[in-house]
Amino acid sequence: MALLRDPDVLEPRLADPLNVRWSPRAFDDQHVLEPRQLHLLLEAARWAPSAGNSQPWSFMVGLRGDETFAGFYEHLARGNQAWAGRASALLVAIRQTASGPDHELPFGGYAQYDLGQAAAHLTIQAHALGLHVHQFAGFDHDAVQQRFGVPEHWAVTTGIAVGVAASPDVLDERTREKELLPRTRRPISEFAFSGTWGEAPVDLS
Amino acid sequence: MALLRDPDVLEPRLADPLNVRWSPRAFDDQHVLEPRQLHLLLEAARWAPSAGNSQPWSFMVGLRGDETFAGFYEHLARGNQAWAGRASALLVAIRQTASGPDHELPFGGYAQYDLGQAAAHLTIQAHALGLHVHQFAGFDHDAVQQRFGVPEHWAVTTGIAVGVAASPDVLDERTREKELLPRTRRPISEFAFSGTWGEAPVDLS
Repeated sequence: MALLRDPDVLEPRLADPLNVRWSPRAFDDQHVLEPRQLHLLLEAARWAPSAGNSQPWSFMVGLRGDETFAGFYEHLARGNQAWAGRASALLVAIRQTASGPDHELPFGGYAQYDLGQAAAHLTIQAHALGLHVHQFAGFDHDAVQQRFGVPEHWAVTTGIAVGVAASPDVLDERTREKELLPRTRRPISEFAFSGTWGEAPVDLS
Repeated sequence: MALLRDPDVLEPRLADPLNVRWSPRAFDDQHVLEPRQLHLLLEAARWAPSAGNSQPWSFMVGLRGDETFAGFYEHLARGNQAWAGRASALLVAIRQTASGPDHELPFGGYAQYDLGQAAAHLTIQAHALGLHVHQFAGFDHDAVQQRFGVPEHWAVTTGIAVGVAASPDVLDERTREKELLPRTRRPISEFAFSGTWGEAPVDLS
């Protein structure tokens, strides 16, 4: 399977496993996540940086076949239901929005940013273990918040599917088409500046 | 230098370079960031995942000695000015808040999350290059937004200091005390649940 579809990724050479990370839809529905792997994923999230060490993140963790997995899957957008059920684990990533009896939140303005960092760390750890991750936002947030009894000072934010990537052949035609689209990104010159916004791309020579 | 101060990090063993990442205040003020290193940092951010591939991030990039670095440094909180001037680079991390002529934003609700992911990728790439990163939020956001002419549909969010870690001896006493505090995190049992929020820590056995 061609993991690196854009030659730009090859030069310069990103560090492992950033250089092979991508977000598949096709997962091997026979793969079972080991407790040790799950532990490492959560440990990676745990040690992510956060504003004032606020750690404003929590996760509901479902393993394929258990109630948490099924309860989350039920509320996914149809486009995500088309693939996410084959993942080995589905996590709900939850950010803190205010202080509560369970946990203070001194730097609330950065909770979504910090949850993103924790999710990125989890994702990179997964890839280092030979797993793949596909994050998604298409689900009924209110229903999921209610389903798991998430308190008001926390907000369900994204879903994180973890598993072993499989051949796109396991997907329906429409999902397979999405899976095979080339990966694209804006060039650095469009988002990195020095001196003045938008007028002076950062000098990389 | 003891990079890993908490034995919990050692077992289970996180992947490189997650296992050695931390956020120093002491930077080597003689180190100069090479263009190739900067290129790799931005490339790592560029390939971070984002909602619907929205890529809602931009960066102002200052290198120690240039106008962008000085212009950002000027507006840092005093506690950050105590150390950040020794870094090799200071970046302003900026998230998109609405669509504009420069870039559409189809999934605006996740821009801060995605900027956090891009910053995490940049940070991990830095550590893979033997550099260290210290992110911070303490600065005059309005002044920085204005200083660099950042348009209204973008919002300056965090600062990212990049450099080579140095001995804490280079720091003033108060900053050195912060630098030497042990790293701590909430235990996994407090933030990862299955079944029902808060009542059922995820089973890792």
